[in-house]
Amino acid sequence: MSVDRSPVDLDALVFNADGLIPVIAQDADTAEVLMMAWANREALQRTLDEGRMVYWSRSRTELWRKGDTSGRAQHWTSLNVDCDADVILATVHQEGAACHTGERTCFYRALEGKNR
Amino acid sequence: MSVDRSPVDLDALVFNADGLIPVIAQDADTAEVLMMAWANREALQRTLDEGRMVYWSRSRTELWRKGDTSGRAQHWTSLNVDCDADVILATVHQEGAACHTGERTCFYRALEGKNR
Repeated sequence: MSVDRSPVDLDALVFNADGLIPVIAQDADTAEVLMMAWANREALQRTLDEGRMVYWSRSRTELWRKGDTSGRAQHWTSLNVDCDADVILATVHQEGAACHTGERTCFYRALEGKNR
Repeated sequence: MSVDRSPVDLDALVFNADGLIPVIAQDADTAEVLMMAWANREALQRTLDEGRMVYWSRSRTELWRKGDTSGRAQHWTSLNVDCDADVILATVHQEGAACHTGERTCFYRALEGKNR
């Protein structure tokens, strides 16, 4: 099976009904998965242009240039697209903690089952 | 700031309007991010019970016990929840390739900008 590994641009991406696409941020040094957030097309264009991660804040309904208020900026080293073109994976140099709680990664809690 | 790192159960998760939550699968050995898919509550309950990743296929609108048809099963070693309880991170032992294309990871293409 021949797989097309050609780079893709923003026109090829599949955004959801709200015009958003999930973006996974992974630490470029430790490979830790730091967080998942959402971006619209403009956020991705700015991310490409500025070298920093720009998301769409669904709670504030505005562009979210990560680090502008928190100081926790993310400088990307790679941006990849999945096979369905509906998820982005960014590897980033993370300034400080990724999570608003102060934890390094947002995924600091385990999911556990309950006895049924 | 004191952060509560207590494990959380399915009742604490925040599902979207379709009853789904994003699940990121990361290779437990190489730390590669392999894919992102979606799960509903039943898929996560089965995942917890069976030790294998079970997703919800949005295209087939049915439970997707990964590997049953493809042989590309994922046996999880940890399941974590993010700070907002609306994303799951699974570390998995991946049988074969994660991606339906035969690539090891679904994120085999770069996102590139265009000259404007």
